[in-house]
Amino acid sequence: MQTRIEVGILGATGMVGQHFIRFLQGHPWFDLAWLGASDRSAGKTYGDAMTWHLGVVPETVAGMTVDDCKPGNAPRLLFSAMDASVASEIERAFAQAGHIVVSNSRNHRMESDVPLLVPEINPDHLKLVPGQQRARGWKGQIVTNPNCSTIVLTMALGPLKQFGITKIITTTLQAISGAGYPGVASMDIVGNVVPFIGNEEEKMQQETQKILGEFRGDHIEPLTAKVSAHCNRVAVVDGHTVTVSVEFSAKPTEADVLHAIQSFRGVPQHRQLPSAPPNPVIYMHEANRPQPRKDAERERGMAAFVGRLRACPVLDYKFVAMAHNTIRGAAGAAVLNAELMHSEGMLD
Amino acid sequence: MQTRIEVGILGATGMVGQHFIRFLQGHPWFDLAWLGASDRSAGKTYGDAMTWHLGVVPETVAGMTVDDCKPGNAPRLLFSAMDASVASEIERAFAQAGHIVVSNSRNHRMESDVPLLVPEINPDHLKLVPGQQRARGWKGQIVTNPNCSTIVLTMALGPLKQFGITKIITTTLQAISGAGYPGVASMDIVGNVVPFIGNEEEKMQQETQKILGEFRGDHIEPLTAKVSAHCNRVAVVDGHTVTVSVEFSAKPTEADVLHAIQSFRGVPQHRQLPSAPPNPVIYMHEANRPQPRKDAERERGMAAFVGRLRACPVLDYKFVAMAHNTIRGAAGAAVLNAELMHSEGMLD
Amino acid sequence: MQTRIEVGILGATGMVGQHFIRFLQGHPWFDLAWLGASDRSAGKTYGDAMTWHLGVVPETVAGMTVDDCKPGNAPRLLFSAMDASVASEIERAFAQAGHIVVSNSRNHRMESDVPLLVPEINPDHLKLVPGQQRARGWKGQIVTNPNCSTIVLTMALGPLKQFGITKIITTTLQAISGAGYPGVASMDIVGNVVPFIGNEEEKMQQETQKILGEFRGDHIEPLTAKVSAHCNRVAVVDGHTVTVSVEFSAKPTEADVLHAIQSFRGVPQHRQLPSAPPNPVIYMHEANRPQPRKDAERERGMAAFVGRLRACPVLDYKFVAMAHNTIRGAAGAAVLNAELMHSEGMLD
Amino acid sequence: MQTRIEVGILGATGMVGQHFIRFLQGHPWFDLAWLGASDRSAGKTYGDAMTWHLGVVPETVAGMTVDDCKPGNAPRLLFSAMDASVASEIERAFAQAGHIVVSNSRNHRMESDVPLLVPEINPDHLKLVPGQQRARGWKGQIVTNPNCSTIVLTMALGPLKQFGITKIITTTLQAISGAGYPGVASMDIVGNVVPFIGNEEEKMQQETQKILGEFRGDHIEPLTAKVSAHCNRVAVVDGHTVTVSVEFSAKPTEADVLHAIQSFRGVPQHRQLPSAPPNPVIYMHEANRPQPRKDAERERGMAAFVGRLRACPVLDYKFVAMAHNTIRGAAGAAVLNAELMHSEGMLD
Repeated sequence: MQTRIEVGILGATGMVGQHFIRFLQGHPWFDLAWLGASDRSAGKTYGDAMTWHLGVVPETVAGMTVDDCKPGNAPRLLFSAMDASVASEIERAFAQAGHIVVSNSRNHRMESDVPLLVPEINPDHLKLVPGQQRARGWKGQIVTNPNCSTIVLTMALGPLKQFGITKIITTTLQAISGAGYPGVASMDIVGNVVPFIGNEEEKMQQETQKILGEFRGDHIEPLTAKVSAHCNRVAVVDGHTVTVSVEFSAKPTEADVLHAIQSFRGVPQHRQLPSAPPNPVIYMHEANRPQPRKDAERERGMAAFVGRLRACPVLDYKFVAMAHNTIRGAAGAAVLNAELMHSEGMLD
Repeated sequence: MQTRIEVGILGATGMVGQHFIRFLQGHPWFDLAWLGASDRSAGKTYGDAMTWHLGVVPETVAGMTVDDCKPGNAPRLLFSAMDASVASEIERAFAQAGHIVVSNSRNHRMESDVPLLVPEINPDHLKLVPGQQRARGWKGQIVTNPNCSTIVLTMALGPLKQFGITKIITTTLQAISGAGYPGVASMDIVGNVVPFIGNEEEKMQQETQKILGEFRGDHIEPLTAKVSAHCNRVAVVDGHTVTVSVEFSAKPTEADVLHAIQSFRGVPQHRQLPSAPPNPVIYMHEANRPQPRKDAERERGMAAFVGRLRACPVLDYKFVAMAHNTIRGAAGAAVLNAELMHSEGMLD
Repeated sequence: MQTRIEVGILGATGMVGQHFIRFLQGHPWFDLAWLGASDRSAGKTYGDAMTWHLGVVPETVAGMTVDDCKPGNAPRLLFSAMDASVASEIERAFAQAGHIVVSNSRNHRMESDVPLLVPEINPDHLKLVPGQQRARGWKGQIVTNPNCSTIVLTMALGPLKQFGITKIITTTLQAISGAGYPGVASMDIVGNVVPFIGNEEEKMQQETQKILGEFRGDHIEPLTAKVSAHCNRVAVVDGHTVTVSVEFSAKPTEADVLHAIQSFRGVPQHRQLPSAPPNPVIYMHEANRPQPRKDAERERGMAAFVGRLRACPVLDYKFVAMAHNTIRGAAGAAVLNAELMHSEGMLD
Repeated sequence: MQTRIEVGILGATGMVGQHFIRFLQGHPWFDLAWLGASDRSAGKTYGDAMTWHLGVVPETVAGMTVDDCKPGNAPRLLFSAMDASVASEIERAFAQAGHIVVSNSRNHRMESDVPLLVPEINPDHLKLVPGQQRARGWKGQIVTNPNCSTIVLTMALGPLKQFGITKIITTTLQAISGAGYPGVASMDIVGNVVPFIGNEEEKMQQETQKILGEFRGDHIEPLTAKVSAHCNRVAVVDGHTVTVSVEFSAKPTEADVLHAIQSFRGVPQHRQLPSAPPNPVIYMHEANRPQPRKDAERERGMAAFVGRLRACPVLDYKFVAMAHNTIRGAAGAAVLNAELMHSEGMLD
């Protein structure tokens, strides 16, 4: 892995694009070499093209010239932070032109031949790619990561899939950074809760079934578990908290469940991928943890945290989980996907 | 009802005591005539004995002299805002001495002969009182209201009891005012979520079963529904939000459920009790409501608000509910209990 | 004053327009009879034309049809909540057509023949109106109220004008509601301070000099005091807090200053105007008050609160002041202006 | 500097003690070897003796045994995070016993022979130490750092001292972490401003004069500038913001002032002390910066940030400044003091 790999960002000027830029700083494999954005930004320096929202824009990036989002000059590996309103066509155009599009956008996640990847949980879903290329006549490909709330839920449930998950009821307390910029109006959220996030519940329900599902040659057989989500916005900056009640067919003991969480390691850990946390799901024994402001940034924002495992009087067990929504739930997720793909030889 | 009734407050200097004082201002039946607090405060004027946390202390109250919490000078009807650490003995002593103790404290709520009252839902639970007096040899009595999160849940479920509730999973997003003063440290909650509130889940689970249960001569047969609660603190000042998934044996349609909520009226409404909202459970059709900061203070803080009724993929239906935790969930709840008791002739 | 007066609102669908609607509910003199907004809203019911941000829209208003902002059907007295980008021409057109425009917009505030009115402080500035009508050939007129941060400062300084104010340094901690909706992005203000509000410092500096200035026949001779403002946004919903250091030529004692504040009453108090608080500037003796969340809504949001008067080592005295920015600082200010005008016979 | 230096912490279990522990992790010179706390904690492991508030307690520290705060086993160099109620005697006892006490506590700051040190601004104030040792008969010594709000002000003013500062008016917007734990009650600060912090204004006024004063053999001749502070608490977690109006005798141009800030470097920078930021005062040109949540943690929390330099209509110039209150304003300040002392050979 001595050769460094040039990467680009589709939708580099938005909030998610900025998270990609920040997360890629100092990456041991990937060199940020190209920034794509709308026609309005093309030709400007990055510093002029956007308002940076994450502290201070890295100097080297500020001076880069923004390109428009058309295949041509971009490197082969692209991270997509495109807005859903435009991502479908642009991502497809790049994949068609031979690019590897590792996307955070929701547009292609639920397509049958597109991996919806959490490297610790379903790395084998990458096997969809050859079929995707064949079916669509693409030299390139599209690989996606889940919605930022789905990933918290699935990171916590991944270790427990072995027990036969049959029912899940989850309530989210989601951070404002998940809505981008300007995103949630302060008049709506300061000292308040907004008990609704558009399409979020549907995404959590469907994506969870796909992520925890089984690769079946040309598609993913979704997990048959029933999933019900209640999504809420709270006045937290970073870190989505989810409460989870879950039912298992195998009726594990509480010790079984705890052990499964604590001992869980995935391919990214075994291969020591650069962005993989040593321990992807960290169980906290303190009675009142995890908490987003205190825990989300630990492990570079790449771990999920679980706590308060206990019996659920209605289903079998309940617990709380939390992860950093713009890192593990967005930019970091996509970068870890690309690292997994590289370790599989898919970027060669 | 021309004769006005003198009332007192046990534990008048704490936060809940202050809420009682504020709520009783201008009450058409009840005159605040006595304030009881710890020995430390006894003999001082109320203004000197406490630090007021709710805007500005009413002038007439500030000048009242605080008494200690021993039977003697207190009026017959007392609202108890005592801390749980001392409420058991003091409330019993007053009941023994002939006082009607309408308590917000948790100490006696789950005792088999003590009504845990929500006037719209289980007014008949007051029938426990004669047995309580006989069994304990009291001339007085103790009547309680639920925990502040339980009341939000039960107000929303009360109209639906007719459909045979069998399973409830609820997650709370609770306001900081529920923890009193100083209560939650700002370092714990600004920009954060605390996914734990001591004993709160147990209280919600047990109290809900009792409130929705049936009077059986000398005790309440609890609702057999299984109840599972996940309790969280969020950075909201007033108003507890709860998400609810619920299963019914009668399998009502969504229209049935909605109609039950919207048409729900109870004894307090029929008797037009002074603190009863015209409509105890208000259904909001906006996609993102109710919200605590925008809705909790409507209807003088005495209504519960429900929204987002929809099918639950795991149980039958899910929705969000919200009510003002220190009014409908504490002081206002107890005052409405006393109003119901007065309308029953129990204060004569 | 038996005859009720019909009023309309220019810019009824925006946040300030909503504040006017809420504040006018139940007004003893003024009947809300007309709502004007942009062409886009014209012809719709008010309920359909806007998203309400202040709890629940009054039912009677929700059903009113919105008109466009052209003279014709509007009543003679209009409150203007127009956005500054369009207020200049529209307000002039209505004044030209004979309407009395009582405006909260900033556009005409600093014009030499337009009163910038705080009824308790400079009611005589209304004498500019005849000259305004002559010079502009208008049958109608425009009268304005100050910016929401200026009003907090001038309410606190009005009682002290008698001591010869020569220098003022003020720092504001302004609520998010002052920026309208969507206004301040939550990503900018949750757990944060934004030390800049566009044009706010200039407005505070100039408006204060005009408000505290002297009527001189056809213009206001501004107060010669030097004014320096530092404006900041904080995560408060309602209520602007300002710290003030001030120098006086008359060198009053601290007791003089305190007495001036506490004994201050203006024309609105003497005439008992409906929206006038009995005591326009309330001095709080508690060491840590006033506070926006605890005090802004007292006195129906129409009083200013001052506290912590003490010597300033650099100028003469310093103190903190606070008032409700969308009531006393916007809608309530304009309504009180109209009440003053009515009491002067200017609406006859 | 190959030899590593053992250090201890007085008051290790409190919030400031925790900040010291976190800041010292990985320090290139100092090894944390000793933890002192009250008798109540002595003998316990650190992990058992306290509740950690800063993410996760470092494992190596959690296992250390806490000692009581009496001279004996402690290393020579001690950082003091003692509460002011006990710091006076304990710090003196350790200094008497030969320890170098680098204290964050306020108790000895204003004593005439005790340095109140900001290494970039008044490193020569360390010359007070020999006189302190002589006068008190101590082999050890006490050196202090300023209050957390003073340091923001003085870091910003240090570069400007050359222009002859004559008057300063400052208003603070201080973070909740400055009040320790539990510190500020959430009921007081969520959605609110508290316009008072006990003794803070006096500290800012006096400490600023001493820090910017001149060493005169056996004492510091304070700066004769008049200083006036208005101190406020806001709902920010870390980072104190201050607005500053300042008058200079030398009447520099705005360009002079800007250049002085931007070119400012001190002894810590020239000697490249480990905790010294390359640029101690960073000027930000964006119109709305610095902001605490976005900027405080930059430069490891050790820089001060200044912005919005402009003319002040009352004094000469005004600007906003911000720094991390628990790092540059507390633990990091003391550690940098010790680094300066080491570079002077005072720890040999």
